[in-house]
Amino acid sequence: MVTTLKTLGPQAAADLDGDLMSESGGFSLDQLMELAGLSVSQAVYKVHPPSAGKRVLLACGPGNNGGDGLVAARHLYFYGYTPTVYYPKPTQKPIFEGLQKQLKNLHIKFDNESKFEDLAKDTDLIVDALFGFSFKPPVREPFDEAIKVMESGVKPVLAVDTPSSWHVEDGPQNEGIGSKYMPDYLISLTAAKPNVGHFKGKKHFIGGRFLGEDVAKKYSLNIPEYQGVDQIVEVPVDVRVEKL
Amino acid sequence: MVTTLKTLGPQAAADLDGDLMSESGGFSLDQLMELAGLSVSQAVYKVHPPSAGKRVLLACGPGNNGGDGLVAARHLYFYGYTPTVYYPKPTQKPIFEGLQKQLKNLHIKFDNESKFEDLAKDTDLIVDALFGFSFKPPVREPFDEAIKVMESGVKPVLAVDTPSSWHVEDGPQNEGIGSKYMPDYLISLTAAKPNVGHFKGKKHFIGGRFLGEDVAKKYSLNIPEYQGVDQIVEVPVDVRVEKL
Repeated sequence: MVTTLKTLGPQAAADLDGDLMSESGGFSLDQLMELAGLSVSQAVYKVHPPSAGKRVLLACGPGNNGGDGLVAARHLYFYGYTPTVYYPKPTQKPIFEGLQKQLKNLHIKFDNESKFEDLAKDTDLIVDALFGFSFKPPVREPFDEAIKVMESGVKPVLAVDTPSSWHVEDGPQNEGIGSKYMPDYLISLTAAKPNVGHFKGKKHFIGGRFLGEDVAKKYSLNIPEYQGVDQIVEVPVDVRVEKL
Repeated sequence: MVTTLKTLGPQAAADLDGDLMSESGGFSLDQLMELAGLSVSQAVYKVHPPSAGKRVLLACGPGNNGGDGLVAARHLYFYGYTPTVYYPKPTQKPIFEGLQKQLKNLHIKFDNESKFEDLAKDTDLIVDALFGFSFKPPVREPFDEAIKVMESGVKPVLAVDTPSSWHVEDGPQNEGIGSKYMPDYLISLTAAKPNVGHFKGKKHFIGGRFLGEDVAKKYSLNIPEYQGVDQIVEVPVDVRVEKL
């Protein structure tokens, strides 16, 4: 039972990723992104099974958070969903290009032309994979439109790692776009980020079942108690947050 | 409901892997091996949950089949198992070196010094990840010893993709090592191989939930009906096998 949630600040989160992908850590970005995206897809299934509506709109940003969204889109397709991917700033690196090709080979729709507002009307759930823990405000075009729509609450939103536009420590912006953004669901990857103390949505998950005890100890994290073969675990929303 | 199992011969299986990892397929070996190893770990959990005994001995060969075993060992550790890895011919490529480092960072035991017979005495289940569909007889040292032990039936065995030492089309060797080898469980990766017609074990799974309809059609495969977020699906053992 989690009573205190230990969190990872942006520098520690970047250092931990660096450790995992170092010569001695042995992980590749491909492996970690695959596991992160798989976690995201399992969280979607948990909060919104296909029987609740198969249309999922994945808003993918230009960085690794967006890559997690692309991987999730593939898994969601195989679970029986109909994903649509909004990916207005595709990243020109082999892994991102490869992930896009995988999705296109499955005839998954990419739509960067429609207004995000219209895409949101035609979906049952939005996955916010725009920005992760390294985001620095303010929100720039073209992502402002997507955040406004998600903020409006028109459709339920699952945010990946951190709600996009939130400050990684301080949470929602004081004013302007994103200041009232509160996703319904959040999945923290590897560990919660300090802004989770501002999360007042319905459910919070942690994903990334690859964190060993030595790394957890180095970063003063607790490994949550995953069940069975699950790649995610739900943690209470009203838990006390400990910033390290 | 699967009534006929379509299978992939060795050339078609190699071609399909090549397609997936081609410029247009967009997959990396890291991604596919991660998903294959994850499937293997889920099959282990299904046939032998941790409550039935936590010790799993993974016999890993020098190729990609062995890499699937290394990935599976990591997932099994996180499910609460105590894996031991037998990996007498480690492959000197970055992905295999990285996978070994991941396991060593989790303090997972590698043992290539003990007799395989002794390792088998100290385990509850053996995972046969020695050779895949590209294996050509005969069985060479040092793998002959492991196959003799698995053949003896001293402990239950889950074979990865194809029972090691079996001919990919014709099944068990006519005589000598492996001629009486019949693993209890089999997980076929991506699609069953033709020798599955010789499999008379207890359970057969298919893993690799990333095969799209276009690729399946090109290779005349049926995509099995996976459930929920499962990465594996059980198929009947006494099914009619169709060689393509």
